[in-house]
Amino acid sequence: MEAELKEMLNDLDSLKQSQPDPSNLASSILKLQSRVEHLTKLAKSAPVRRTKVQDMSAEVVDSNPYSRLMALQRMGIVDNYERIRDFSVAIVGIGGVGSVAAEMLTRCGIGRLLLYDYDKVELANMNRLFFRPEQVGMTKTDAASQTLSDINPDVVLESFTLNITTVQGFETFMSSLRNKSFRPNKEGSGVDLVLSCVDNYEARMAVNQACNELNQTWMESGVSEDAVSGHIQLLIPGETACFACAPPLVVASGVDERTLKREGVCAASLPTTMGVVAGLLVQNTLKLLLQFGQVSPYLGYNSLKDFFPTMEMRPNPQCSNAACLERQKEYLLVKPARDAAIIAKMEAEALSVPEGPLHTDNEWNISVVDDSAPERTDATSSDALPEGLTRELPAADEFQKFPAAEPATATFDDIEELRKQLDALNAD
Amino acid sequence: MEAELKEMLNDLDSLKQSQPDPSNLASSILKLQSRVEHLTKLAKSAPVRRTKVQDMSAEVVDSNPYSRLMALQRMGIVDNYERIRDFSVAIVGIGGVGSVAAEMLTRCGIGRLLLYDYDKVELANMNRLFFRPEQVGMTKTDAASQTLSDINPDVVLESFTLNITTVQGFETFMSSLRNKSFRPNKEGSGVDLVLSCVDNYEARMAVNQACNELNQTWMESGVSEDAVSGHIQLLIPGETACFACAPPLVVASGVDERTLKREGVCAASLPTTMGVVAGLLVQNTLKLLLQFGQVSPYLGYNSLKDFFPTMEMRPNPQCSNAACLERQKEYLLVKPARDAAIIAKMEAEALSVPEGPLHTDNEWNISVVDDSAPERTDATSSDALPEGLTRELPAADEFQKFPAAEPATATFDDIEELRKQLDALNAD
Repeated sequence: MEAELKEMLNDLDSLKQSQPDPSNLASSILKLQSRVEHLTKLAKSAPVRRTKVQDMSAEVVDSNPYSRLMALQRMGIVDNYERIRDFSVAIVGIGGVGSVAAEMLTRCGIGRLLLYDYDKVELANMNRLFFRPEQVGMTKTDAASQTLSDINPDVVLESFTLNITTVQGFETFMSSLRNKSFRPNKEGSGVDLVLSCVDNYEARMAVNQACNELNQTWMESGVSEDAVSGHIQLLIPGETACFACAPPLVVASGVDERTLKREGVCAASLPTTMGVVAGLLVQNTLKLLLQFGQVSPYLGYNSLKDFFPTMEMRPNPQCSNAACLERQKEYLLVKPARDAAIIAKMEAEALSVPEGPLHTDNEWNISVVDDSAPERTDATSSDALPEGLTRELPAADEFQKFPAAEPATATFDDIEELRKQLDALNAD
Repeated sequence: MEAELKEMLNDLDSLKQSQPDPSNLASSILKLQSRVEHLTKLAKSAPVRRTKVQDMSAEVVDSNPYSRLMALQRMGIVDNYERIRDFSVAIVGIGGVGSVAAEMLTRCGIGRLLLYDYDKVELANMNRLFFRPEQVGMTKTDAASQTLSDINPDVVLESFTLNITTVQGFETFMSSLRNKSFRPNKEGSGVDLVLSCVDNYEARMAVNQACNELNQTWMESGVSEDAVSGHIQLLIPGETACFACAPPLVVASGVDERTLKREGVCAASLPTTMGVVAGLLVQNTLKLLLQFGQVSPYLGYNSLKDFFPTMEMRPNPQCSNAACLERQKEYLLVKPARDAAIIAKMEAEALSVPEGPLHTDNEWNISVVDDSAPERTDATSSDALPEGLTRELPAADEFQKFPAAEPATATFDDIEELRKQLDALNAD
């Protein structure tokens, strides 16, 4: 823009030098020139994008946008940080959680981001991070693409302005997840992880359906209507409960959740709760993709008490989702071989450990016990079949109020009952 | 900018209509016009600020930036959300945590923010949220003021480009905290809370000194050098441990921490960890200011295991900070009256509860027990005196590795030893 304005000034200069005639022309031109000079000053505050970076460098200079991330290698946290450029992450719902998750992954230098939303930016969204008042009226996908590409032009951005709960939207969603042009030799689908950051159960069920069909690992996130609690959950088709294995009451009862909304009433939201949930979601994404730390199967955030419940949910062998049952069968078939491989690897690692103390200065000869042993599997395959939902209660010793619609509140009997009701409804 | 460009087009039109002479003038003008038209298109993407809002409204319309926050009242979380406009929060250090904390408070509609930093924005900061590449080279205070006032022009922003660890910087810091022009009838200092978001111990000790002198409640935050853990801590002079009550090793040993930094080596950082810490910090700020939920005295975040340790630290009666000892004396003097008032209030509330069941539909007559009873105080005041540091270990039943410099790692004996060393060094 500044170059454009400079050219304009030059043109005006030459126009002036040709001196075609009267004094009023000269004064008009002077006036124009001062205007353009003023514009130039204004334009100086306009965005200038940074250039793309070929390779991630660990060099410690102020101009290196990746120095603090590559330092994770020197700190011993991540083996190969630059691998992040190979990964594709799809984010469904670019609202209070999804937009912040997208920004975090963009700043971390993720290879490719796929963004899905059909909504527009409103002033009523300004109490959460990311969107700015000047973006009001833009689609969330356009506004996000603009902001994210300014922040980090190295990230490949693909945005889809669509509703995944429509037939057409779901088909486009599925084909975009299957598309492998970014990394043609990748196994499975075209993305490494799907993050669900939507605000309704219908959309969660659509993500669940797509991921079950594609055997795609995904993470679910949510924030309560009263804005003070939230959760993230890891879903691996066949291995963990899917979203339909223990459906929330509103889903199981077959009620259209849109009919529950009342005119003139909206959910509360806070940038804090959504920022924390987005942070926990992307931190677990990084742990999963870059293989460090422990990925949480479920992590809740109760902000009133700063309490963080955890649990695990196994798949429901009577799940109403056919694709889930397929994935469960596949998982049980490969599980013995997988467990054997893990045990073999652990034994090999144990053999390679020298007989003496692990550390020469470890005078007490204390070492940390590896707790990554596979789940105990019983001899008969029928015993190995999960007999329904098993839940581990949160570790806290005090009463914890969960949001009403959370799967965790339902007891096994409730689920069984709800499933029957749901099946009956579906059979109509 | 668009208005400016429109005027320019009008001027060019009138210039053209006067038709002074040759054809090259006309063609030059046409060329200029097309340039200006192009500029107009470019300018459309330039920021347009929203206008100020007189009162916070709960009306559920897309154009209301506060509808989702005012909904906290209808949800029964906050009694009077609009009170947030009365509060002043000072944020020291506008880096990875402080900038996000400032944005969250701005989007929540805080009354007044005071920002302190002396650093400039670098491309190497782009792996954390908030700052944008086009702000590189600006001071962090200027860049933050620009972004925050665009997001929410209702917030009163005061920024101080200074280093609080210098004599001059500390004096300006102190006088800015004392300034009561925003709310002249406020008790105590001119701010309601100080948030420390700095990255070094010298600055933390400066905040500690200022807050002890002013009897100012503050919150401390920090993120580990390996980017995967962090913490927040509430410090109430006289009532909780101050930062000097159990100083980190590097502070206690009197070593200049700057000498520990090595050329070509930087700390790692992640937008996730910093986003989570900022979220937890501001959530606790909102709980403290708007009086809902429970404010955490200390909350850690170990992201590798998604573990969140909590603890409490009482003041050290042998603290090396004279102002801390003053505050401890004051606190012990008012404590019996304070506890009596709390007990009287609780008894009054218990009396006002009707004899029958609390809820008519509560057939089991179950009610939640109030756990906000004050600490047990013994009859003799000498017994009530804390006899040194008492620590509550984190609630988890597994081994937890704390960052080396955390106060929590030191045992009482270590602290005693370190304090003696520190006093000896100070005496030199």
